[in-house]
Amino acid sequence: MSGKPFTLSVKVVLRDARGRCLLVRRSSLSKNNAGKWDLPGGKVDAGENFDVALKREVAEETGLDISIDDVLGAAESVTPAKRVVYLILGGHPTAGEVRLSSEHDAHVWVDSRALAEVDLCGQFRPFAVAYAKAAPGPS
Amino acid sequence: MSGKPFTLSVKVVLRDARGRCLLVRRSSLSKNNAGKWDLPGGKVDAGENFDVALKREVAEETGLDISIDDVLGAAESVTPAKRVVYLILGGHPTAGEVRLSSEHDAHVWVDSRALAEVDLCGQFRPFAVAYAKAAPGPS
Repeated sequence: MSGKPFTLSVKVVLRDARGRCLLVRRSSLSKNNAGKWDLPGGKVDAGENFDVALKREVAEETGLDISIDDVLGAAESVTPAKRVVYLILGGHPTAGEVRLSSEHDAHVWVDSRALAEVDLCGQFRPFAVAYAKAAPGPS
Repeated sequence: MSGKPFTLSVKVVLRDARGRCLLVRRSSLSKNNAGKWDLPGGKVDAGENFDVALKREVAEETGLDISIDDVLGAAESVTPAKRVVYLILGGHPTAGEVRLSSEHDAHVWVDSRALAEVDLCGQFRPFAVAYAKAAPGPS
Protein backbone atom coordinates (compact mmCIF):
# COMPACT_ATOMS: atom_id res chain seq x y z
CA MET A 1 0.00 0.00 0.00
CA SER A 2 2.74 2.46 0.95
CA GLY A 3 4.43 1.97 -2.40
CA LYS A 4 1.59 3.45 -4.47
CA PRO A 5 2.08 6.98 -5.73
CA PHE A 6 -0.13 9.71 -4.28
CA THR A 7 -2.20 12.03 -6.44
CA LEU A 8 -3.89 15.21 -5.21
CA SER A 9 -7.33 16.07 -6.55
CA VAL A 10 -9.39 19.16 -5.63
CA LYS A 11 -13.17 19.10 -5.59
CA VAL A 12 -15.74 21.79 -4.95
CA VAL A 13 -19.17 21.99 -3.39
CA LEU A 14 -20.40 24.77 -5.65
CA ARG A 15 -23.31 26.53 -3.96
CA ASP A 16 -25.85 28.80 -5.60
CA ALA A 17 -27.69 31.66 -3.89
CA ARG A 18 -30.40 29.22 -2.73
CA GLY A 19 -27.90 26.94 -0.97
CA ARG A 20 -28.19 24.17 -3.54
CA CYS A 21 -25.00 22.54 -4.79
CA LEU A 22 -23.95 21.40 -8.24
CA LEU A 23 -23.35 17.76 -9.07
CA VAL A 24 -22.27 16.35 -12.41
CA ARG A 25 -22.93 12.78 -13.59
CA ARG A 26 -19.98 10.78 -14.88
CA SER A 27 -20.43 9.57 -18.43
CA SER A 28 -21.32 5.93 -19.05
CA LEU A 29 -17.92 5.67 -20.77
CA SER A 30 -15.97 6.74 -17.67
CA LYS A 31 -13.26 4.30 -16.58
CA ASN A 32 -14.24 4.66 -12.92
CA ASN A 33 -17.59 5.33 -11.31
CA ALA A 34 -19.49 5.47 -14.63
CA GLY A 35 -22.99 6.87 -14.12
CA LYS A 36 -22.30 8.07 -10.58
CA TRP A 37 -22.81 11.66 -9.46
CA ASP A 38 -19.62 13.56 -8.75
CA LEU A 39 -18.42 16.88 -7.41
CA PRO A 40 -16.82 19.12 -10.04
CA GLY A 41 -13.02 19.34 -9.93
CA GLY A 42 -10.05 17.15 -10.67
CA LYS A 43 -6.38 16.44 -10.54
CA VAL A 44 -3.76 19.00 -9.64
CA ASP A 45 -1.12 18.95 -12.37
CA ALA A 46 2.58 18.87 -11.46
CA GLY A 47 3.68 22.33 -10.36
CA GLU A 48 0.14 23.72 -10.39
CA ASN A 49 -1.36 25.47 -7.35
CA PHE A 50 -4.48 23.67 -6.07
CA ASP A 51 -6.75 26.71 -6.40
CA VAL A 52 -5.66 27.25 -10.00
CA ALA A 53 -6.24 23.55 -10.71
CA LEU A 54 -9.74 23.67 -9.23
CA LYS A 55 -10.76 26.73 -11.25
CA ARG A 56 -9.34 25.21 -14.42
CA GLU A 57 -11.07 21.85 -13.92
CA VAL A 58 -14.41 23.43 -13.04
CA ALA A 59 -14.26 25.70 -16.10
CA GLU A 60 -13.43 22.69 -18.31
CA GLU A 61 -16.16 20.51 -16.82
CA THR A 62 -18.98 23.00 -16.27
CA GLY A 63 -18.21 26.22 -18.16
CA LEU A 64 -18.44 28.15 -14.88
CA ASP A 65 -16.02 30.62 -13.35
CA ILE A 66 -15.94 30.20 -9.59
CA SER A 67 -14.73 31.80 -6.41
CA ILE A 68 -13.39 29.66 -3.56
CA ASP A 69 -15.02 30.33 -0.19
CA ASP A 70 -13.93 27.78 2.39
CA VAL A 71 -12.42 24.41 3.23
CA LEU A 72 -14.92 21.62 3.81
CA GLY A 73 -13.04 18.36 4.15
CA ALA A 74 -10.95 15.62 2.62
CA ALA A 75 -11.45 12.16 1.18
CA GLU A 76 -9.44 9.31 -0.28
CA SER A 77 -9.76 6.56 -2.85
CA VAL A 78 -7.31 3.76 -3.43
CA THR A 79 -7.07 2.17 -6.87
CA PRO A 80 -4.80 -0.69 -7.93
CA ALA A 81 -2.32 1.86 -9.29
CA LYS A 82 -2.48 4.84 -6.95
CA ARG A 83 -3.89 6.62 -3.92
CA VAL A 84 -5.94 9.70 -4.71
CA VAL A 85 -6.35 12.25 -1.92
CA TYR A 86 -9.18 14.76 -2.35
CA LEU A 87 -9.28 18.21 -0.84
CA ILE A 88 -12.91 19.39 -0.78
CA LEU A 89 -13.51 23.14 -0.89
CA GLY A 90 -16.66 25.24 -0.91
CA GLY A 91 -17.28 27.87 -3.56
CA HIS A 92 -19.82 29.68 -5.67
CA PRO A 93 -20.18 30.45 -9.38
CA THR A 94 -19.23 33.97 -10.42
CA ALA A 95 -19.90 33.82 -14.17
CA GLY A 96 -21.08 31.49 -16.93
CA GLU A 97 -23.89 29.03 -17.54
CA VAL A 98 -23.52 25.26 -17.03
CA ARG A 99 -22.13 23.64 -20.18
CA LEU A 100 -20.84 20.10 -19.70
CA SER A 101 -17.83 18.50 -21.34
CA SER A 102 -17.92 14.96 -22.73
CA GLU A 103 -16.78 13.63 -19.33
CA HIS A 104 -20.29 14.16 -17.92
CA ASP A 105 -23.78 13.63 -19.32
CA ALA A 106 -26.02 15.41 -16.80
CA HIS A 107 -25.96 17.96 -14.02
CA VAL A 108 -28.24 18.80 -11.13
CA TRP A 109 -28.48 21.41 -8.40
CA VAL A 110 -29.41 19.56 -5.22
CA ASP A 111 -30.40 20.84 -1.83
CA SER A 112 -27.38 20.44 0.47
CA ARG A 113 -29.50 18.48 2.96
CA ALA A 114 -30.18 15.89 0.24
CA LEU A 115 -26.53 15.33 -0.66
CA ALA A 116 -26.39 12.07 1.29
CA GLU A 117 -29.31 10.60 -0.69
CA VAL A 118 -27.64 10.95 -4.08
CA ASP A 119 -25.84 8.06 -5.83
CA LEU A 120 -22.50 9.77 -5.37
CA CYS A 121 -19.03 8.34 -6.08
CA GLY A 122 -18.37 6.16 -3.03
CA GLN A 123 -15.29 8.01 -1.81
CA PHE A 124 -17.40 11.12 -1.11
CA ARG A 125 -20.20 9.42 0.79
CA PRO A 126 -18.79 9.92 4.32
CA PHE A 127 -18.20 13.57 3.49
CA ALA A 128 -21.69 13.95 1.97
CA VAL A 129 -23.38 12.43 5.01
CA ALA A 130 -21.54 14.79 7.37
CA TYR A 131 -22.12 17.80 5.12
CA ALA A 132 -25.85 17.14 4.68
CA LYS A 133 -26.24 16.73 8.44
CA ALA A 134 -24.55 20.08 9.12
CA ALA A 135 -26.39 21.95 6.33
CA PRO A 136 -28.79 24.64 7.54
CA GLY A 137 -32.51 24.11 7.00
CA PRO A 138 -34.69 26.45 4.92
CA SER A 139 -34.43 30.03 6.14
CA MET B 1 -10.70 37.84 0.69
CA SER B 2 -10.73 36.19 -2.73
CA GLY B 3 -7.62 38.13 -3.75
CA LYS B 4 -5.32 36.48 -1.23
CA PRO B 5 -3.01 33.77 -2.53
CA PHE B 6 -3.62 30.19 -1.39
CA THR B 7 -0.92 28.07 0.18
CA LEU B 8 -1.15 24.32 0.74
CA SER B 9 0.27 22.85 3.91
CA VAL B 10 0.28 19.16 4.88
CA LYS B 11 0.12 18.03 8.50
CA VAL B 12 0.25 14.62 10.09
CA VAL B 13 -1.28 12.92 13.08
CA LEU B 14 1.68 10.66 13.76
CA ARG B 15 0.53 7.67 15.80
CA ASP B 16 2.70 5.31 17.78
CA ALA B 17 1.91 1.65 18.49
CA ARG B 18 -0.02 2.70 21.63
CA GLY B 19 -2.33 5.03 19.68
CA ARG B 20 -0.76 8.19 21.06
CA CYS B 21 0.03 11.01 18.63
CA LEU B 22 2.99 13.35 18.41
CA LEU B 23 2.65 17.09 18.98
CA VAL B 24 5.44 19.66 18.77
CA ARG B 25 5.42 23.03 20.57
CA ARG B 26 6.11 26.12 18.50
CA SER B 27 9.12 28.07 19.73
CA SER B 28 8.54 31.30 21.68
CA LEU B 29 10.20 33.08 18.74
CA SER B 30 7.64 31.83 16.18
CA LYS B 31 5.95 34.57 14.19
CA ASN B 32 2.54 32.89 14.54
CA ASN B 33 1.12 30.79 17.35
CA ALA B 34 4.25 31.02 19.52
CA GLY B 35 4.11 28.51 22.38
CA LYS B 36 1.12 26.63 20.93
CA TRP B 37 1.15 22.91 20.25
CA ASP B 38 1.16 21.97 16.60
CA LEU B 39 0.97 18.94 14.33
CA PRO B 40 4.23 18.15 12.50
CA GLY B 41 4.30 19.11 8.82
CA GLY B 42 4.41 22.23 6.72
CA LYS B 43 4.20 23.98 3.41
CA VAL B 44 4.23 22.18 0.08
CA ASP B 45 6.89 23.82 -2.08
CA ALA B 46 6.13 24.78 -5.68
CA GLY B 47 6.19 21.67 -7.85
CA GLU B 48 6.52 19.32 -4.87
CA ASN B 49 4.12 16.40 -4.34
CA PHE B 50 2.25 16.71 -1.02
CA ASP B 51 3.44 13.35 0.32
CA VAL B 52 7.06 14.21 -0.42
CA ALA B 53 6.56 17.60 1.26
CA LEU B 54 5.08 15.97 4.38
CA LYS B 55 7.92 13.47 4.74
CA ARG B 56 10.51 16.20 4.21
CA GLU B 57 8.93 18.56 6.74
CA VAL B 58 8.46 15.84 9.36
CA ALA B 59 12.08 14.71 8.95
CA GLU B 60 13.29 18.32 9.32
CA GLU B 61 11.10 19.03 12.35
CA THR B 62 11.26 15.75 14.24
CA GLY B 63 14.08 13.61 12.84
CA LEU B 64 11.56 10.84 12.09
CA ASP B 65 10.95 8.90 8.90
CA ILE B 66 7.25 8.24 8.46
CA SER B 67 4.77 6.25 6.45
CA ILE B 68 1.43 7.81 5.43
CA ASP B 69 -1.62 5.72 6.36
CA ASP B 70 -4.83 7.64 5.74
CA VAL B 71 -6.61 10.92 5.13
CA LEU B 72 -8.11 12.51 8.24
CA GLY B 73 -9.38 15.95 7.34
CA ALA B 74 -8.71 19.52 6.33
CA ALA B 75 -8.44 22.92 7.97
CA GLU B 76 -7.85 26.54 7.06
CA SER B 77 -6.26 29.67 8.47
CA VAL B 78 -6.51 33.15 7.02
CA THR B 79 -3.72 35.63 7.68
CA PRO B 80 -3.52 39.24 6.47
CA ALA B 81 -1.36 38.09 3.56
CA LYS B 82 -2.67 34.66 2.57
CA ARG B 83 -5.04 31.74 3.03
CA VAL B 84 -3.41 28.54 4.18
CA VAL B 85 -5.28 25.31 3.48
CA TYR B 86 -4.20 22.28 5.51
CA LEU B 87 -4.55 18.69 4.45
CA ILE B 88 -4.36 16.47 7.55
CA LEU B 89 -3.12 12.92 7.07
CA GLY B 90 -2.56 10.04 9.46
CA GLY B 91 0.75 8.23 9.63
CA HIS B 92 3.23 6.39 11.79
CA PRO B 93 6.99 6.63 12.39
CA THR B 94 9.11 4.04 10.61
CA ALA B 95 12.60 5.05 11.77
CA GLY B 96 14.45 7.58 13.91
CA GLU B 97 14.18 9.14 17.36
CA VAL B 98 12.54 12.50 18.00
CA ARG B 99 15.10 15.30 17.56
CA LEU B 100 13.57 18.78 17.26
CA SER B 101 14.73 21.62 15.06
CA SER B 102 14.95 25.22 16.33
CA GLU B 103 11.33 25.79 15.20
CA HIS B 104 10.04 23.84 18.22
CA ASP B 105 11.10 23.64 21.85
CA ALA B 106 9.18 20.61 23.15
CA HIS B 107 7.34 17.51 22.01
CA VAL B 108 4.79 15.23 23.58
CA TRP B 109 2.99 11.99 22.74
CA VAL B 110 -0.64 12.48 23.74
CA ASP B 111 -3.50 10.03 23.90
CA SER B 112 -5.71 10.67 20.85
CA ARG B 113 -8.73 11.09 23.09
CA ALA B 114 -7.00 14.01 24.83
CA LEU B 115 -6.19 15.91 21.65
CA ALA B 116 -9.06 18.35 22.19
CA GLU B 117 -7.72 19.33 25.62
CA VAL B 118 -4.33 20.50 24.36
CA ASP B 119 -3.52 24.19 23.71
CA LEU B 120 -3.30 23.55 19.98
CA CYS B 121 -2.96 26.12 17.17
CA GLY B 122 -6.51 27.45 16.77
CA GLN B 123 -7.00 26.34 13.17
CA PHE B 124 -6.75 22.68 14.22
CA ARG B 125 -9.20 22.81 17.13
CA PRO B 126 -12.35 21.78 15.20
CA PHE B 127 -10.41 18.88 13.71
CA ALA B 128 -8.95 17.90 17.11
CA VAL B 129 -12.38 17.90 18.76
CA ALA B 130 -13.83 15.64 16.05
CA TYR B 131 -10.78 13.39 16.02
CA ALA B 132 -10.68 12.97 19.81
CA LYS B 133 -14.38 12.12 19.84
CA ALA B 134 -13.94 9.43 17.19
CA ALA B 135 -10.78 7.95 18.75
CA PRO B 136 -11.15 4.42 20.14
CA GLY B 137 -10.90 3.91 23.89
CA PRO B 138 -8.29 1.66 25.55
CA SER B 139 -8.34 -1.86 24.13
